[in-house]
Amino acid sequence: MVYFSSDYMVGAHPEVLEHLVATNQQHTPGYGADHFTAQAEQLILQACQLTGTDTTTRGKVYFLEGGTQTNLIVIDRLLDRNDGVISAETAHINVHEAGAIEACGHKVLALPSNDGKLTADQVDRYLTEFYNDETHEHMVRPAMVYITFPTELGTLYTRQQLSELSRVCNRWQIPLYIDGARLAYGLASPANDLTLPDIAALSDLFYIGGTKCGALFGEALVTRRPELLPRFFSLMKLRGGVLAKGRLLGVQFKALFENNLYQRIGQHAIQMAMMLKQGVVERGYTLYMDSPTNQQFVILPNEKIQTLRPEVSFELWGPPGEHETPVRFVTDWSTTPDAVRTLLDLLSDPPSAGLRLAGNRGQ
Amino acid sequence: MVYFSSDYMVGAHPEVLEHLVATNQQHTPGYGADHFTAQAEQLILQACQLTGTDTTTRGKVYFLEGGTQTNLIVIDRLLDRNDGVISAETAHINVHEAGAIEACGHKVLALPSNDGKLTADQVDRYLTEFYNDETHEHMVRPAMVYITFPTELGTLYTRQQLSELSRVCNRWQIPLYIDGARLAYGLASPANDLTLPDIAALSDLFYIGGTKCGALFGEALVTRRPELLPRFFSLMKLRGGVLAKGRLLGVQFKALFENNLYQRIGQHAIQMAMMLKQGVVERGYTLYMDSPTNQQFVILPNEKIQTLRPEVSFELWGPPGEHETPVRFVTDWSTTPDAVRTLLDLLSDPPSAGLRLAGNRGQ
Amino acid sequence: MVYFSSDYMVGAHPEVLEHLVATNQQHTPGYGADHFTAQAEQLILQACQLTGTDTTTRGKVYFLEGGTQTNLIVIDRLLDRNDGVISAETAHINVHEAGAIEACGHKVLALPSNDGKLTADQVDRYLTEFYNDETHEHMVRPAMVYITFPTELGTLYTRQQLSELSRVCNRWQIPLYIDGARLAYGLASPANDLTLPDIAALSDLFYIGGTKCGALFGEALVTRRPELLPRFFSLMKLRGGVLAKGRLLGVQFKALFENNLYQRIGQHAIQMAMMLKQGVVERGYTLYMDSPTNQQFVILPNEKIQTLRPEVSFELWGPPGEHETPVRFVTDWSTTPDAVRTLLDLLSDPPSAGLRLAGNRGQ
Amino acid sequence: MVYFSSDYMVGAHPEVLEHLVATNQQHTPGYGADHFTAQAEQLILQACQLTGTDTTTRGKVYFLEGGTQTNLIVIDRLLDRNDGVISAETAHINVHEAGAIEACGHKVLALPSNDGKLTADQVDRYLTEFYNDETHEHMVRPAMVYITFPTELGTLYTRQQLSELSRVCNRWQIPLYIDGARLAYGLASPANDLTLPDIAALSDLFYIGGTKCGALFGEALVTRRPELLPRFFSLMKLRGGVLAKGRLLGVQFKALFENNLYQRIGQHAIQMAMMLKQGVVERGYTLYMDSPTNQQFVILPNEKIQTLRPEVSFELWGPPGEHETPVRFVTDWSTTPDAVRTLLDLLSDPPSAGLRLAGNRGQ
Repeated sequence: MVYFSSDYMVGAHPEVLEHLVATNQQHTPGYGADHFTAQAEQLILQACQLTGTDTTTRGKVYFLEGGTQTNLIVIDRLLDRNDGVISAETAHINVHEAGAIEACGHKVLALPSNDGKLTADQVDRYLTEFYNDETHEHMVRPAMVYITFPTELGTLYTRQQLSELSRVCNRWQIPLYIDGARLAYGLASPANDLTLPDIAALSDLFYIGGTKCGALFGEALVTRRPELLPRFFSLMKLRGGVLAKGRLLGVQFKALFENNLYQRIGQHAIQMAMMLKQGVVERGYTLYMDSPTNQQFVILPNEKIQTLRPEVSFELWGPPGEHETPVRFVTDWSTTPDAVRTLLDLLSDPPSAGLRLAGNRGQ
Repeated sequence: MVYFSSDYMVGAHPEVLEHLVATNQQHTPGYGADHFTAQAEQLILQACQLTGTDTTTRGKVYFLEGGTQTNLIVIDRLLDRNDGVISAETAHINVHEAGAIEACGHKVLALPSNDGKLTADQVDRYLTEFYNDETHEHMVRPAMVYITFPTELGTLYTRQQLSELSRVCNRWQIPLYIDGARLAYGLASPANDLTLPDIAALSDLFYIGGTKCGALFGEALVTRRPELLPRFFSLMKLRGGVLAKGRLLGVQFKALFENNLYQRIGQHAIQMAMMLKQGVVERGYTLYMDSPTNQQFVILPNEKIQTLRPEVSFELWGPPGEHETPVRFVTDWSTTPDAVRTLLDLLSDPPSAGLRLAGNRGQ
Repeated sequence: MVYFSSDYMVGAHPEVLEHLVATNQQHTPGYGADHFTAQAEQLILQACQLTGTDTTTRGKVYFLEGGTQTNLIVIDRLLDRNDGVISAETAHINVHEAGAIEACGHKVLALPSNDGKLTADQVDRYLTEFYNDETHEHMVRPAMVYITFPTELGTLYTRQQLSELSRVCNRWQIPLYIDGARLAYGLASPANDLTLPDIAALSDLFYIGGTKCGALFGEALVTRRPELLPRFFSLMKLRGGVLAKGRLLGVQFKALFENNLYQRIGQHAIQMAMMLKQGVVERGYTLYMDSPTNQQFVILPNEKIQTLRPEVSFELWGPPGEHETPVRFVTDWSTTPDAVRTLLDLLSDPPSAGLRLAGNRGQ
Repeated sequence: MVYFSSDYMVGAHPEVLEHLVATNQQHTPGYGADHFTAQAEQLILQACQLTGTDTTTRGKVYFLEGGTQTNLIVIDRLLDRNDGVISAETAHINVHEAGAIEACGHKVLALPSNDGKLTADQVDRYLTEFYNDETHEHMVRPAMVYITFPTELGTLYTRQQLSELSRVCNRWQIPLYIDGARLAYGLASPANDLTLPDIAALSDLFYIGGTKCGALFGEALVTRRPELLPRFFSLMKLRGGVLAKGRLLGVQFKALFENNLYQRIGQHAIQMAMMLKQGVVERGYTLYMDSPTNQQFVILPNEKIQTLRPEVSFELWGPPGEHETPVRFVTDWSTTPDAVRTLLDLLSDPPSAGLRLAGNRGQ
């Protein structure tokens, strides 16, 4: 069996686990007031070039347990009572968080998107129309922008695109927040022209995903504008997002940001993903989405899907089509070249032309 | 000056006001436990044919203060924690209630619509896809349907359309709720083939709009399924929707449902609206929306809009176009034939052909 | 039958109703953007001496529909995410609003009170202890103070007491909010040494009760610090607290603040209440609470309660005792001297000594 | 340095960590759909005697990340819109969860308690009075009972006390929920006469604390009435309480419930606590609270507190007194007899009589 279902099927990268084991018996204060957490924050701020000595240059890091939790607490903190958050229709907060944002009282203002991305123009137009509408006091005020990097569809913003989005948010004075659940894979992608300091500078806040990028669990929320998060610990506590043994997050992120581990994890997964992508294309399959990151979306004949099932774990991407269906293959630190080769071998038996044509008509 | 801005520019219909004056000095218990309220409920249940003697045939009425308040309390009552409400994108709850539904913790699941209506098919497809999605436990469950009758664009569901929608909701076992803020005008429209008992039978709950249909304020929520609203008084109280002098609502709705007043109010406004509509069409104007109810949407040259301003009150419908802009004219019980004639006279100076063509290019 | 159940058993004071009738057919913009509302605001600001021409001296008035609604919207506006509101245990928001404050996400921090009042010391001590507690980031931050004037038990703060409370709130920089549901009766009480301008100056915000003081319904929220209520209209809308025909509130409060009507209503009800109080004391009954306002609390033998029932409407104040039970008699603008005399005559048959003694033993 | 600050100062018990390491590279489905989680559930149900084969005898287990998170999700699930939860004033949910319950919209109905416990009588009286109150529809309905075992003060309910409380809840048909953050220490206490199956049978739901009892983090919610938690996964997701690598909780609880580890952890900590308690009493110190569990509360002269500081980690229990202050010493699986002896040696220098007397006067 080879595994491509997701990037959260195994435990932590061995170096992360090693740190947890090595520090297990040390006594520290609870709730994140420990030295591991302080060190992890320092390492992350260095990596983000947010280590200035005054409040205008020094960032702040908060550690949380998972992506949905991070999103709901951040958004709840940034929005006032009748504010909403602009996102793409495909955004995780709009689709796959079970209504977490609304449960905090806020509307997700979802804009159409084909590739999982928002454009600066789109956001600018939305805000312009809102404030031009004479009845806007009866409407939900758009008060922040949420994007994902990479997106749910594996795509990436270019530096140009992110800069423009950042400029629009700046002009309207609303924060831009980046969900970096799979940030490692975005940064390591050959298609990427953004650095971690770029991300830190062009967003108001963003989180560095741990759960899907080599940690057991945990996300690191980073902001260059700590004033946006007043009394944040209390809000984390209120939403059930504070670990008594807060150091668990500190220890893991310390491991991830020492010796370039976060970077190495990203690079390895991307190598595997590119090998996989090249292989499926060479074998004549159509990509459902041309993703430059660790999620690869391929259209497979339904028959082929059946033959893969006993030997490969993967997920369908959407409801089954009549003849063919998009599927997703995901790589991570634990993916081996052998596993990719096994998958490609299983795909080598080429999809029949007849089926493909029928399938294309069905789309 | 003649007035077509909205149906809430004057006080109550004189017969409603008379009842308030006549009963002013009577002593009654508070919070709706008075005999006026009981009588109003009885009159409404009769009008809806929900006066059976057992729980399967006897309906229930609750009186609330306004439309947004009614919507938010009803929806908050019907939905469980991570449930959402299906509506048209143009729905009042999705656009013009400042996020009231989300503030109660629920997502509005907005579906596209050109005419303000949802179709049975559209709802059925949405529910089918939801339950077919393997990740639906991570998503907001669609658990009720909200429609407006007439819609925000003045349009009406036919008996056929409403029956189909009702059947779909029934099959999926989710309640269908109708916002009848302007119900009087829907029922009185020549295009309408639904009666009040039809509305009561085909929905699970609906409200009879008072504020926009002749009352000072107030809406009557009617349901043939009282079991859907357990402990509803407490929830109304919790949301600030209980009047100490609850009888104010009872007295007004008693007035509206005695001597066919609600019907007469609807009929008069519709007569005025049809006279207005016929007049603008005869004068060569284009309708923005072919509305059979008391809101009439007409495209006017911007120049004409300027000349009307000092003598007619009305609203733009959307942002101004380059050459012409849709406007809304609304009638109600207080609209006189003279006022309509005044408006039509002012419109008689025909829009210049040149402008119209230019305008059309601009759309 | 004579009526002492509450101050919301009849409609509006005739002068208020007259204004509603007189203005009924005028056309005005909706949602409170009318000239009646503007005039009412101006009259109230004058009465409160908040009519300065710059932002430091000029107050702001918002009109809402009822007390619970006003309380929940104000408190929701003033509090941040994990903030709570300090109140007396007996406070309306803590007992009789069905959890409205908690439904907005906020804890009521209830302090013990025998007479319905908070003391400055008590509040100061609570805040001191909170900030001295090393774990206070895990606790709900006390961020405003809510008091009632008169209290739920009919009692009043003296100028001295209110000044001290105001000073404490000021020192801790948290707003002091006064619920004035029965303000007219507090101001008109012979025991009162505070004026309306005093109330306006010593609180950060307060509301002038209309519902229980002569209006059909409605409360006027007044603040000398408008900056405390950013985007308040949207929040009112979001909570279902905006009337389409907003002028109804304007018209009523204009009537109440022209020709001293609000004052006259208070004075009349207090005269009746004092006549009633003196009468019951003269007849040998024990006061449950020595109230200087329009609610009078008297301990009656249960037998006497039974004999009153067919001829007087009134409420028990708490669960029935074995032999005697406190009851409440309330006066308002509609109470006549004749009604008070009727009640006193019915009470003239003195409570039997035996019963009283037994009752006292039971207490 | 010796450590008695809390039971969350170190990582996991070595046997728990071993399991995490041993399973780290296995591939499993996400979100708790793995076999470790299934095995952990089975082991816990066996330990609770809830392994019947039909729905009336078979329990259900959900794994969550921390105590506050578990409490807020459970309480949010059990309560309807205007319901509240009865707890002791000292309860964690009332004091130390930053308003988490209120943030979900629910009032904590806090009853007075000296020892951290509620009595059956107290709860019964509260419910009786609530339903006898004629205005109870205006009030928050008490709809569940929350207790802690052991309590925040280290005390325990006897089987008799818990049975009576259970009976009262049963009679009123409201669920009884037990927060077992430190359950291991309650079960292992020499003063305890309750078994895990007793706890499972006498409560409607309870959670087995992992975080403070040997896990890295995690709590196991157990119920013999799964019907109380419909669509619970979605609610967990909505509140940010679902781990992508859900198996982390399964693996840990599997370790805790194999080979009696949970029991052994409790027993060891209790032995250390009893040794500590006996030692401080023998040395003439006064207990602030006679706790039979792993938290020991001792009154120390302030001078002694200062001398301990450099060598012992511990917490003050409340604000410093003038001469003496209660402190808390906590034991866990990592506490050694040597550490206890070191502490006792440091305490051997007896508190001066003069100081003690002065201190007593100060209390």
